[in-house]
Amino acid sequence: MKLKATALCLLAGVGLSLQTHAQTDSLMLRKIFDEALVKGECYENLRYLCKKIGSRLSGSAGAQKSVAWSKKLMEGYGFDKVYLQEVMVPHWVRGEKEQGIIVMGDTRTPVAMAALGGSVASPKAGITAQVIELQSLKELETLGEARIKGKIVFFNRPFDERFIETGGAYGTAGDQRNVGPGAAAKYGAVAVIVRSLTASLDNYPHTGGTNYGDNPKIPAAAISTMAANKLSMLLKQRSAIPVKFFLKTSCQTLPDVLSYNVIGELKGTENNNKYITVGGHLDSWDLAEGAHDDGTGVMQSAEVLRIFKAVGYRPKNNIRAVFFMNEENGHKGGIKYAEQALKDKEEHIAALETDEGGFTPRGFSFERATPAFLKGINQQWKALLEPYETDRLVAGGGGTDIGPLRQTHPNIQLIGFRPDSQRYFDIHHTPNDVFENVNKRELELGAAACASLIYLIDQHGLSF
Amino acid sequence: MKLKATALCLLAGVGLSLQTHAQTDSLMLRKIFDEALVKGECYENLRYLCKKIGSRLSGSAGAQKSVAWSKKLMEGYGFDKVYLQEVMVPHWVRGEKEQGIIVMGDTRTPVAMAALGGSVASPKAGITAQVIELQSLKELETLGEARIKGKIVFFNRPFDERFIETGGAYGTAGDQRNVGPGAAAKYGAVAVIVRSLTASLDNYPHTGGTNYGDNPKIPAAAISTMAANKLSMLLKQRSAIPVKFFLKTSCQTLPDVLSYNVIGELKGTENNNKYITVGGHLDSWDLAEGAHDDGTGVMQSAEVLRIFKAVGYRPKNNIRAVFFMNEENGHKGGIKYAEQALKDKEEHIAALETDEGGFTPRGFSFERATPAFLKGINQQWKALLEPYETDRLVAGGGGTDIGPLRQTHPNIQLIGFRPDSQRYFDIHHTPNDVFENVNKRELELGAAACASLIYLIDQHGLSF
Repeated sequence: MKLKATALCLLAGVGLSLQTHAQTDSLMLRKIFDEALVKGECYENLRYLCKKIGSRLSGSAGAQKSVAWSKKLMEGYGFDKVYLQEVMVPHWVRGEKEQGIIVMGDTRTPVAMAALGGSVASPKAGITAQVIELQSLKELETLGEARIKGKIVFFNRPFDERFIETGGAYGTAGDQRNVGPGAAAKYGAVAVIVRSLTASLDNYPHTGGTNYGDNPKIPAAAISTMAANKLSMLLKQRSAIPVKFFLKTSCQTLPDVLSYNVIGELKGTENNNKYITVGGHLDSWDLAEGAHDDGTGVMQSAEVLRIFKAVGYRPKNNIRAVFFMNEENGHKGGIKYAEQALKDKEEHIAALETDEGGFTPRGFSFERATPAFLKGINQQWKALLEPYETDRLVAGGGGTDIGPLRQTHPNIQLIGFRPDSQRYFDIHHTPNDVFENVNKRELELGAAACASLIYLIDQHGLSF
Repeated sequence: MKLKATALCLLAGVGLSLQTHAQTDSLMLRKIFDEALVKGECYENLRYLCKKIGSRLSGSAGAQKSVAWSKKLMEGYGFDKVYLQEVMVPHWVRGEKEQGIIVMGDTRTPVAMAALGGSVASPKAGITAQVIELQSLKELETLGEARIKGKIVFFNRPFDERFIETGGAYGTAGDQRNVGPGAAAKYGAVAVIVRSLTASLDNYPHTGGTNYGDNPKIPAAAISTMAANKLSMLLKQRSAIPVKFFLKTSCQTLPDVLSYNVIGELKGTENNNKYITVGGHLDSWDLAEGAHDDGTGVMQSAEVLRIFKAVGYRPKNNIRAVFFMNEENGHKGGIKYAEQALKDKEEHIAALETDEGGFTPRGFSFERATPAFLKGINQQWKALLEPYETDRLVAGGGGTDIGPLRQTHPNIQLIGFRPDSQRYFDIHHTPNDVFENVNKRELELGAAACASLIYLIDQHGLSF
């Protein structure tokens, strides 16, 4: 009887201490969200980045300007340490506005087209060739050089709309753009045009990087989904007049340029050499302002540290906001960050990347997510995050910029911020990725969600 | 030993049967989502409603046109029964474009303003009076007739941005518009202007209904949040020149008009007299196209029935899609529907309202949600809805149109569809509530979420 009573008391004691922890955490999360929603600064910071600086492709004047401004911004917030990390980045330029024209006999129909990042230029006069439409890279093999050689390959596999999160559709359609041009070149194609990577039926070309690997380099461009539908329809008509395509691009790759990751840091009060990173990428494509991709991510990352200072939270571990350079066409900033962290013998607990747009938060994905980890983190933290509707804690990828830490710091947990994904690929890599398409509250909620998770990790670690 | 083995077998049997159920349900939900996302028709239907018909305020030609078109639409889908339900509705008209001007001596600053629905007109020449800014209806009492009489009361309490779901902020700020004008009239105010009900800082006036109750009727209008900030700033300057406001409106209430709820029905295979309703409202405010409010809701409701037919699901109970008339300024359609259901001795299991915009689904709220109910429904159905990220099953309101069923059918469960709420009040009741602000996939996911819940209720009931 007595033993049982003692056990009960012990249990009550544990319960009490857990409850106190949970209450402290719950109060802190409320403070974080209130600060973000009522006194948030990331929206106005993003406005500056988009409207006063604009596009920030690696190596461009915009990118350099954004580095200087970002450093000043974080210094202005009084973070404990703000510095630049040197990194050599590729310098690809688009050149003159591209021309893409469907040619059938005397009928010429211009279409919305943008060269793929990293692509080589066409001959100066442009290139005209017959078009062959493929749905997959595998078809290259099936058809062989006989059918491909001398033609313009048109990859036209659309997004699979059945995916609930659009990232899944992007992932499965992406090979056409990422490696399609190189693969087609191997079979003698003279150029590649790719259906824009989006489920949206509109007239914007979606650019994005391509990697030829060891294959010959041929001109490669994306055409809008409306243009792709038109071209496909014409091909399906099997007219006696062959369907050709004229493509003229003048992009080129210049020598690498010195650029920088921009890093802000709050010093930990307990663990001198332990780090938690939150970051996004400062560079963007050249067609617009890089608002959702990834102005929102870098502005949220700085906002996490600003919120901690504003609510008076002094972290146990060093917390870093990292504005990575060159995510879009080289990942050099992410590689450099990991290398330097290894060289400096830093211990990294976790890194959180926000690079899926500034939309309403839904949760986070964790790379090293054993069943026990997922069970534990959901048992401990889901209820804390639930009032903010950012409580989907699932297995999944971290992100491109933090990826290299996987090798240099095998014990790190890599985490992806997961906002609502429905609108991302409507504007992704298009002229439409502008400040006006970012919603203030959605952006702020995302910043608060990231701050909340970083706070919980800082307080309790990630051993579940 | 034998007994235990039997128990184990029984247990295994139950487990198996549960699993089979869950598998059937899971497969059906996947079918529903695939149909909505790949072959969905609600987006194109919404385009027609918004672009070919447009605004649909009760009693207007647009409303009548939308009734006829909606009936034809559902007939075209071959639902088992499609019919109109007569309902007399108020007929308020805005009249000429309103004029609202801040007047300080000779300086006249026009502001974005829209009369509130139901409001009376100003005198023909307009009305000019000194402005008094209040933050709450309570202040009317504190200040009393001495300070209010002869003035224009300016209710300027902003949205509380700390709410995570914006409906909370709308709810707590709403009294200023809903009953503020009548309350101010009681103290001798000559007109009321209200800060638009939104957290967004923009230059659109947000209209919406006001109800004078038994109080005198005075002109009432909403001004944009930017105009409200300007007016408030001028008042705070305490200049020697008094801050006045000129307001001219010419709205009027005409005699009631015969209109209709539009109802489509799939017959139940088992329960002749049992009904499950899914609905939204067909009427809209007059300033725009009523896209999110509530074109999306009615088009999703019809889509639920269309999906059932398309995937070959034959419901056990009668399933009704109801396009309610007159939600915005009278709720007459909702009242009529409940009265008729009572008169016809129909048994109603549940009614689901979709009237919070066509945004990404998050879940559903249930009015009669005991702790046992919430526990049960989450245990049984959360895992089924989780892959579609519409699994937040919480206590909360159903909606205005289905509300009257609470009295006529005390056993009914009233359910609100809960999409992401962040952008709703950016466009709610403004000239910006247009088709272009609806995202195709978000709309389709919402339709599939509603269809999924209706399917589960039809299969399993709601006894948890």
